[in-house]
Amino acid sequence: MAEPTRRGRGSEATRELIVETALRLFRERGYEATTMRAIAAEAGVSVGNAYYYFSSKEALIQAYYDRAQREHEAACRALLDRERGFEARLSGVLREWVRVSEPYHEFAVKFFKHAAEPSNPLSPFSAESTPARESSIAIYREVVEGSADRMDPELRAELPELLWLMSMGVVLYWVHDTSPGCARTYRMIELTVPLVGRLVGLSHLPGLRGITRDFLAAVHELRA
Amino acid sequence: MAEPTRRGRGSEATRELIVETALRLFRERGYEATTMRAIAAEAGVSVGNAYYYFSSKEALIQAYYDRAQREHEAACRALLDRERGFEARLSGVLREWVRVSEPYHEFAVKFFKHAAEPSNPLSPFSAESTPARESSIAIYREVVEGSADRMDPELRAELPELLWLMSMGVVLYWVHDTSPGCARTYRMIELTVPLVGRLVGLSHLPGLRGITRDFLAAVHELRA
Repeated sequence: MAEPTRRGRGSEATRELIVETALRLFRERGYEATTMRAIAAEAGVSVGNAYYYFSSKEALIQAYYDRAQREHEAACRALLDRERGFEARLSGVLREWVRVSEPYHEFAVKFFKHAAEPSNPLSPFSAESTPARESSIAIYREVVEGSADRMDPELRAELPELLWLMSMGVVLYWVHDTSPGCARTYRMIELTVPLVGRLVGLSHLPGLRGITRDFLAAVHELRA
Repeated sequence: MAEPTRRGRGSEATRELIVETALRLFRERGYEATTMRAIAAEAGVSVGNAYYYFSSKEALIQAYYDRAQREHEAACRALLDRERGFEARLSGVLREWVRVSEPYHEFAVKFFKHAAEPSNPLSPFSAESTPARESSIAIYREVVEGSADRMDPELRAELPELLWLMSMGVVLYWVHDTSPGCARTYRMIELTVPLVGRLVGLSHLPGLRGITRDFLAAVHELRA
């Protein structure tokens, strides 16, 4: 199937064109009904050329995940360099995710059922998604590490992964959100971040330290 | 399409046979690939007869939801009549759900992607699922109302719906659970119920009452 061409000037643009075309067709025709052949035809490249860049439709989705991840990081950079409050950092990172994801909302709503399938390599919980998941968690690690707030040290170590789980909850709410401009998802972030902030702030107090410890032990065991 | 037959002796058995056959074919061939015609043929009834009982494949899934709900209620009856501790009631109800759902685990893993699709009427969050959701919430209402534990009165009013949301978290974990006998899901229940119990128990203390109030206000606004 491969028809290797020399990669060079323009190859990045071709790659981008193929990803853009694929996302549009997935949205218009559905993921299952869209073939690599159709993507190549719509993008105006040969099928062999399309396969040279992407070995499968899964690889196209992975390229979309990677790109969305890079866009999200770039959008958060100024905030993470400037802001030291935990709640402001977390809220900003979640809000930026909704903002940069907005052009893909329609696609994400339709694609969600594939990502939600336990056996699908494109599930955020799959073994195959480990690298993508790790790079998503990295931004929440930066949220925590750059924060000046006091918190239980053991919780601080686990918090990046827990905040990533929270962000999956935001994604779940967002794919169900039909409000204009996803206003309800922004509101959800506005309401839940201060609650998380207060629980994190209370985590080192004597009355809650026991629960914090048991909670962390449960998290450790259940994700293994 | 309809070919009405007289309902009477045997009609309940025919109904059950059609549901059983449908679930088996959905599991073996996938939900999308299975037609009403194939279900009728496998069940040994006419297509018209199948349509007499179920107007669509969605109606078959709804019948499965209803039956699973009745089985769950029956399985919890003795526990809910006897036990007064909040944690024991909650843990028992969640464990019984896993136990009665076990024969459907393989089907549920495959069907999950349809239920997870935001626009699907079979999503547990859809408007169409409101009656099924309400009857699921009713069992958690009984968990709370029959419990002798002290808790914040406003939280008590909202707790049934929150526990149902928690049970959706258990379902999410369960569809990803490949451990023998779903042992990990039982362990998840064992680890998380005491945490929920302690948070609920602390909810009326002065230091946490403010968070409890804000949490409940957020829940009210976000589910609207």
